[in-house]
Amino acid sequence: MAKQLFDKMLYGGDYNPEQWPREIWDEDMRLFKKAHINSATVNVFSWAKLQPSEQEYNFSELDDIINMLSKENYEIVLGTSTAAIPAWLCRKYPDIMRVDFEGRKQRVGHRHNHCPNSPTFHRFAKRLVSKVAERYGDNPHVKVWHISNEYGGECYCENCERAFRVWVKDKYKTIDAVNEAWNMHFWSHTLHSFDDIFVPNYLGDGISDTAAAYAGLSIDYRRFNSESLLNNFIMEREAIREFDKETPVTTNFMGAYKPLDYFKWAKEMDIASWDNYPGLHTTLSQTNMNNDLMRGVKDGQSFMLMEQTPSQQNWQPYNTLKRPGKMRAQSYQTIAHGADTIQFFQMRRTKGAVEKFHGAVIEHVGHEQTRVFREVTELGKELEQLGDTLIGAETKARVGILFDWDNYWALEYTSGPTVDLRYVDQIQRYYDACYNQQVAIDMIHMDSDFEKYDIVLAPVLYMVKEGIAEKIDAFVKQGGTFLTTYMSGIVDQSDNVHLGGYPGPLRETLGIWVEEIDALAPNSYNSIKTESDLFEKNDYTCMMICDLMHTEGAEVIAEYGSDFYKGMPVVTKNKRGEGEAWYVGAVLEQNMLNELIAQLLDQKGIKGFGPLPEGVEIASRVKDGKEFFFVMNHSDQTHTIETEFEGYTDLLSGEKAQRSIELQSFDVQILTP
Amino acid sequence: MAKQLFDKMLYGGDYNPEQWPREIWDEDMRLFKKAHINSATVNVFSWAKLQPSEQEYNFSELDDIINMLSKENYEIVLGTSTAAIPAWLCRKYPDIMRVDFEGRKQRVGHRHNHCPNSPTFHRFAKRLVSKVAERYGDNPHVKVWHISNEYGGECYCENCERAFRVWVKDKYKTIDAVNEAWNMHFWSHTLHSFDDIFVPNYLGDGISDTAAAYAGLSIDYRRFNSESLLNNFIMEREAIREFDKETPVTTNFMGAYKPLDYFKWAKEMDIASWDNYPGLHTTLSQTNMNNDLMRGVKDGQSFMLMEQTPSQQNWQPYNTLKRPGKMRAQSYQTIAHGADTIQFFQMRRTKGAVEKFHGAVIEHVGHEQTRVFREVTELGKELEQLGDTLIGAETKARVGILFDWDNYWALEYTSGPTVDLRYVDQIQRYYDACYNQQVAIDMIHMDSDFEKYDIVLAPVLYMVKEGIAEKIDAFVKQGGTFLTTYMSGIVDQSDNVHLGGYPGPLRETLGIWVEEIDALAPNSYNSIKTESDLFEKNDYTCMMICDLMHTEGAEVIAEYGSDFYKGMPVVTKNKRGEGEAWYVGAVLEQNMLNELIAQLLDQKGIKGFGPLPEGVEIASRVKDGKEFFFVMNHSDQTHTIETEFEGYTDLLSGEKAQRSIELQSFDVQILTP
Amino acid sequence: MAKQLFDKMLYGGDYNPEQWPREIWDEDMRLFKKAHINSATVNVFSWAKLQPSEQEYNFSELDDIINMLSKENYEIVLGTSTAAIPAWLCRKYPDIMRVDFEGRKQRVGHRHNHCPNSPTFHRFAKRLVSKVAERYGDNPHVKVWHISNEYGGECYCENCERAFRVWVKDKYKTIDAVNEAWNMHFWSHTLHSFDDIFVPNYLGDGISDTAAAYAGLSIDYRRFNSESLLNNFIMEREAIREFDKETPVTTNFMGAYKPLDYFKWAKEMDIASWDNYPGLHTTLSQTNMNNDLMRGVKDGQSFMLMEQTPSQQNWQPYNTLKRPGKMRAQSYQTIAHGADTIQFFQMRRTKGAVEKFHGAVIEHVGHEQTRVFREVTELGKELEQLGDTLIGAETKARVGILFDWDNYWALEYTSGPTVDLRYVDQIQRYYDACYNQQVAIDMIHMDSDFEKYDIVLAPVLYMVKEGIAEKIDAFVKQGGTFLTTYMSGIVDQSDNVHLGGYPGPLRETLGIWVEEIDALAPNSYNSIKTESDLFEKNDYTCMMICDLMHTEGAEVIAEYGSDFYKGMPVVTKNKRGEGEAWYVGAVLEQNMLNELIAQLLDQKGIKGFGPLPEGVEIASRVKDGKEFFFVMNHSDQTHTIETEFEGYTDLLSGEKAQRSIELQSFDVQILTP
Repeated sequence: MAKQLFDKMLYGGDYNPEQWPREIWDEDMRLFKKAHINSATVNVFSWAKLQPSEQEYNFSELDDIINMLSKENYEIVLGTSTAAIPAWLCRKYPDIMRVDFEGRKQRVGHRHNHCPNSPTFHRFAKRLVSKVAERYGDNPHVKVWHISNEYGGECYCENCERAFRVWVKDKYKTIDAVNEAWNMHFWSHTLHSFDDIFVPNYLGDGISDTAAAYAGLSIDYRRFNSESLLNNFIMEREAIREFDKETPVTTNFMGAYKPLDYFKWAKEMDIASWDNYPGLHTTLSQTNMNNDLMRGVKDGQSFMLMEQTPSQQNWQPYNTLKRPGKMRAQSYQTIAHGADTIQFFQMRRTKGAVEKFHGAVIEHVGHEQTRVFREVTELGKELEQLGDTLIGAETKARVGILFDWDNYWALEYTSGPTVDLRYVDQIQRYYDACYNQQVAIDMIHMDSDFEKYDIVLAPVLYMVKEGIAEKIDAFVKQGGTFLTTYMSGIVDQSDNVHLGGYPGPLRETLGIWVEEIDALAPNSYNSIKTESDLFEKNDYTCMMICDLMHTEGAEVIAEYGSDFYKGMPVVTKNKRGEGEAWYVGAVLEQNMLNELIAQLLDQKGIKGFGPLPEGVEIASRVKDGKEFFFVMNHSDQTHTIETEFEGYTDLLSGEKAQRSIELQSFDVQILTP
Repeated sequence: MAKQLFDKMLYGGDYNPEQWPREIWDEDMRLFKKAHINSATVNVFSWAKLQPSEQEYNFSELDDIINMLSKENYEIVLGTSTAAIPAWLCRKYPDIMRVDFEGRKQRVGHRHNHCPNSPTFHRFAKRLVSKVAERYGDNPHVKVWHISNEYGGECYCENCERAFRVWVKDKYKTIDAVNEAWNMHFWSHTLHSFDDIFVPNYLGDGISDTAAAYAGLSIDYRRFNSESLLNNFIMEREAIREFDKETPVTTNFMGAYKPLDYFKWAKEMDIASWDNYPGLHTTLSQTNMNNDLMRGVKDGQSFMLMEQTPSQQNWQPYNTLKRPGKMRAQSYQTIAHGADTIQFFQMRRTKGAVEKFHGAVIEHVGHEQTRVFREVTELGKELEQLGDTLIGAETKARVGILFDWDNYWALEYTSGPTVDLRYVDQIQRYYDACYNQQVAIDMIHMDSDFEKYDIVLAPVLYMVKEGIAEKIDAFVKQGGTFLTTYMSGIVDQSDNVHLGGYPGPLRETLGIWVEEIDALAPNSYNSIKTESDLFEKNDYTCMMICDLMHTEGAEVIAEYGSDFYKGMPVVTKNKRGEGEAWYVGAVLEQNMLNELIAQLLDQKGIKGFGPLPEGVEIASRVKDGKEFFFVMNHSDQTHTIETEFEGYTDLLSGEKAQRSIELQSFDVQILTP
Repeated sequence: MAKQLFDKMLYGGDYNPEQWPREIWDEDMRLFKKAHINSATVNVFSWAKLQPSEQEYNFSELDDIINMLSKENYEIVLGTSTAAIPAWLCRKYPDIMRVDFEGRKQRVGHRHNHCPNSPTFHRFAKRLVSKVAERYGDNPHVKVWHISNEYGGECYCENCERAFRVWVKDKYKTIDAVNEAWNMHFWSHTLHSFDDIFVPNYLGDGISDTAAAYAGLSIDYRRFNSESLLNNFIMEREAIREFDKETPVTTNFMGAYKPLDYFKWAKEMDIASWDNYPGLHTTLSQTNMNNDLMRGVKDGQSFMLMEQTPSQQNWQPYNTLKRPGKMRAQSYQTIAHGADTIQFFQMRRTKGAVEKFHGAVIEHVGHEQTRVFREVTELGKELEQLGDTLIGAETKARVGILFDWDNYWALEYTSGPTVDLRYVDQIQRYYDACYNQQVAIDMIHMDSDFEKYDIVLAPVLYMVKEGIAEKIDAFVKQGGTFLTTYMSGIVDQSDNVHLGGYPGPLRETLGIWVEEIDALAPNSYNSIKTESDLFEKNDYTCMMICDLMHTEGAEVIAEYGSDFYKGMPVVTKNKRGEGEAWYVGAVLEQNMLNELIAQLLDQKGIKGFGPLPEGVEIASRVKDGKEFFFVMNHSDQTHTIETEFEGYTDLLSGEKAQRSIELQSFDVQILTP
């Protein structure tokens, strides 16, 4: 259930005054006020300043910053400063740094690269965070704790190896169980002792980020690594909680970031937050899937948009400016999908180092006479006017899409049948089909309550862990519509195949048996024939993966049109209990997929706002029984759309909507009855 | 001479029951019988099971497997289990693992990665193999010893460095001779002691797999490495021979695999065997060249097809299924070129680890109601009926193509004139021209008896070692037709140029002098003009490499049509004694090359079955004076061909052939008078 | 000012007789004479021969070589032999070898890879060079000292780390100053001690050759590394000067080679020299920019063409032959731009190792009956006839193009706005525009006397170091025409942004303010509109980078035609004092740039010889008040051009020129009134 943590939109961003002479601070205060900014994130990267040596701490500068912000009545997002290790500390305790996948010990440099199992890290980080929490924990302006920053990556050092052995022993108890789980008898890797376990990097059983000799081992190492970093988070949170029992704690996520199981993480956090940096080729639907995932990690609770750029990024290959109005539209897109805050990286553009070309509220020119500042100000004014209207509003979705980090890892470790099968891409195809209908989606996990949804989509549900098949079957029997695809039901939680025929434990629910899985070369296609009135045409194409399947009770909706499996089913529907279980046996052309999903929605009476012209989007949130419709045009063209919002009021302009709404480029309306 | 080692086709494959609960073994026996399988390869990867610790051996499970197979009367291909190192052994004796080209010490992981010069490896491997041989050496069901598995790769560790210094000293005696051989005075790498020699990996004089500062050094290192691994093989063979004097010994090759000089290896083996895994773009001609090479390594003796997939691979980027009938046709293609066995990897599909998506006789579904099982069964039935008819049959080739690992290594180390010149590609072009005529080819080596052939083709004979030029000249003078190309006769066995004008020691035989070697940019061409009636047209093109040559007695067959060397010869023929020596000075378009080779064959009265429609192939083998014609259609279309086999009997169908034979997709006939 | 160091053209090249048996030496002498060769470079790679062990030196062979060359009256270019380390020395003192960017310690191998800060290297190199200088320093045939060879690369070892800390301390005095300079407070990399400084390789704050976490640190490391190697050069030069006070000293450069600041280097050298190896795609203009840069490093003084190939290279991917006449034309092209010598790598083609396919005066065939030898001979004859006519001649340029290694490094380290922006490419675009007009260009540096020029072009003047803005402003005020572009005026010498608005300290001079910098995706364009009569059309395009700028006094010459910044200026001119300061805010299509530069030249009355047909080039040099016009056709077609050289004499043919000159492919004329 959603929980309201703020009483107004947090509007601000990363503020690093310690990089600047103090005379600039006053100017900052003036400019922030002018831009209607009410929040500042500080102390994200200051460890080396706070602790100049092993014995010495120095909070004087941070005191001044916090005092100034408090005096000026800012909401403070307070960092813990543990995401970059001071040089003196690396130098003195080299175990604090990671060993990378290729076995190279890292030295001082960059950030987000401490070893999560380094006792040195634990000791020093805990001491630091305790001191910070002790000092500022009772400051009422501190609204959120921002622990570390963009946790990520992996370590393969000796500390981790030792810790991993313990972790494996905790999980499996006996070495025989490990051999069984990872199928170590294959290639005679049978382990005789927990000490026989080596970290699976390039020098051992790892091959790359997407290939492993023993996927069971590598998947477990990913679980272990994600947990190790999560333990760092928990350690810091506990240090804070000693001095501050209440202020919400978060750390900033990165969407569908592969190395961390954000569902597990979010359970330990009071609020989720994320950094939204769409690239040149990021679609609106991709951004929305990320937004929905960030809302999903805490089961629908509003999240913080911890970072976005006011205009330009610096680390993409080609960093285009955000066109006028685009940043505002993107901000509302995020709010429409669950954000309670809009924060920027960065407030004042840093003058040196790798991010100096990253956009900021205050540009290098230093004054407010810039397009970017004006746009930030205009948005600030609007958000201020909105007050708490939308804070904590909820998204009412009747469709859930299963997202699962274990599947993400496992699917991408498979050697065969095709290298082109990437987890997020496949999930996205189904999200896109829903987006095409402009329906609300929840990104859900294995423990989610499926019964809340009319439809559950589970593309590439490659790994079916214990209890999941039963849960799906119950959902179907009770009337739900369930859909899964090629490469589903293949393995158990350890990446061992569910023997007895694909899709393993889902076979009965789906009423099919997949005998073989063909992989097509790039730019190769099979054709699809269908007589079903679900589709507009009789002929479509598919690609990449083609299941050769037999029905075992399911109804054939479409079949292959060519090759030796011409006439075999490719899309099937199995009626079961009150519900239906669908199977899609190949990567369908997107048109066909869109039509299929549209029909499933229709059958459940789920009415979206789509299809809409490209770039136009409508999303809704509900608060206190009141529904808010976000009508947005993300394109650079004017679009006129017919809606059912006639007479509704636009919160932003105060004007009444007509049935036909003309949207200029980057226009946004928030309509409410 | 060919030698018959089996009394029937070995039909079976890799069987790893130790991965499975015992209750499955009975089912395996039932299914194998059903599929007419008569052979099983076991114990390829079991070291860690056989030897759980330094002092402990445990053969109970293997005993059970061998007993079961023996009882069921299977022919056993018995592995030695040394291709993957137990974790406990790596952990205790890290010297057993390799150091890679980039200087990284490997840890536990994967397989085929022990250091060939590790004393630890020698000690433990020998002990293990002795025990296995002692235990099972007198079992009459053991038909072949399968030592290790797919030997390959290189090691650059300290053990190898020490051993290499000894090897170099043995070969060259004095350090001055080394300096001379490797031309170490260049760039002042003059060595003053054998201790000055360092392994040529990336940290030293290596650059990459295909580039070296001192090719002489790197080529010697390849020789040393190939020999080091061969010594491992010999060590195991000797351990076996202590207990089993007779059972043939093999290890599985991989076609034109670069790191190992298979000609040298095959001398130490009783029978050659190989693993045939054509990829998406592998041509029939490429597979045949590999087959012929595998027959050539033992001078024409039949070989074992140790591995192929019943349908799908897993480690290619795109693993398509073998269409119905394709596996059968591929099996007969292998038999047609010299195989006495058809074996699969794998018998039962493994349930976990990196090869779980690799095809198997018994799929994950576990029963026999699969297309793949049916096809395996049908083939098994046919092979059973064929009995020993084709076992040990020979290929009668009048054309030999020289293949030489020293050339392979040396040519690909050259810096200049073009990076596009790859050894196997160039050999393949000439093989393709022969294949176009559907004539039998022997892949021959430097010590082969050239006099057995009417024609010897030696494309890119870059390295001409001592005695070879004289051998070629004698062959020509005695009436042989010899052909070589651009980039031939350039260097001696140490990669030092044969001074005095290209093609060095071949110059007199060929009657030409190559003054310069031009390299063309990709997609650049020169034209060729010819008035010779050998060719159908007067104009062709060539590419990549263009020799600027002068005749010194040879006749000009074709000349360049453009650029500043317009009018210079590009194809020449030199009559010498009773024979002819041909030189091709540029990479000809394949059409022209096909016509040229067709004419050379014609002049020698060698009559092939080609050209045939694409995908159709005819090959013959002879046994006891009886000739067997394999007529195969590897395409997915029906083809009708005119043959001279009217009235011949098809061994498979028992039907009589007509002059005009219609071949359905993947049809195979084995016709005999 | 130019300085004449030779009394005739040095014509010869790299001669490595120590690779050959002595009987060949006599033949070499004969052939060199025949080819009119008057010079030989020796002892470039002989350390291991000269010093077979730590205590032992052996000069007997080199004595013989020097004696022979002296007797035969050759001008000797004497190497110091320190560019490759003997194996025994690496083995005994591993600190002499580098650690690479990825942290890998190199072992024996290759060349140009000693650690510049290794005490071992200093000790042994100095001893060796002293001995060489003592022995041969007073030989009157030694005309030039050739120290080491093609210095380059970087080292990241512990020696270098220690030395770097000292270097940083010397430069910045306090650690606070370092933190400020490198902006180390960003990401909390605040340093508390000089010992906190780590070398910026991949294990630390480096990312790649073109990316760094802290560019200030990485730029300083490049400065340090360039200086470290320069100190090696100086150390050797001083060792020579102890025994030879006068003979000019050089080392061979490589054009716009990134790692070394050749302007700083050239100050320490008596004469510059370089190795000219155009590749398949190198344009004439690129070669000329390199030639002009090599003339520019010593402020206009003639340079040595230390290496070129007579015909073929070996280390490019595709090594085409130089067409007949091409080598000659290229040689004159070099002379036309400032060369006083024409030397080849190599004299006799080496018989082994990585450069054996590199062209040579004497090919592997060993005799003189080759095209290459004939062409070398013909050129030699001509150069002999030219005698000292052109030695020390000067180029009179009125246009200077600023080239600056600090900018080169800094611009390419930026993260954003686009990865496509490469320093030399951008400079080349402006050089090309000048080349299109065939005007003389000086490549100038920050300390050059701008007042010598009518026009100074400073594309991508990203880093504006102290005093430069003032110098530019003074140049403009006094009547100069100055032009700079996008990505200029951004940072100070430490890569910290000049705050207060781009282009920082150049803003007033240029009369503009750049508010934002847009980056365009590949193959994206904006349009440009102009009414200015400077241009032939009204519409052009631009790409990659688009500044959004406001004039502050400057006149708008052209503006954007599309996107949201349509109508904003893209090209501006600011009249200031007697001069003009131009700003180009986007990467213009080359046509527009050519027209713009043509107009700037025209306004200053600078008359070039262009445009000319593609491949035709005219350049002039002046000696003793006499002007020499090099008229060259580098194309493979005949071109007829109209000139003003009617009645001039061609030094090469002795013929009088007509107004209309017909140039055959690769024709060269040197016309003088």
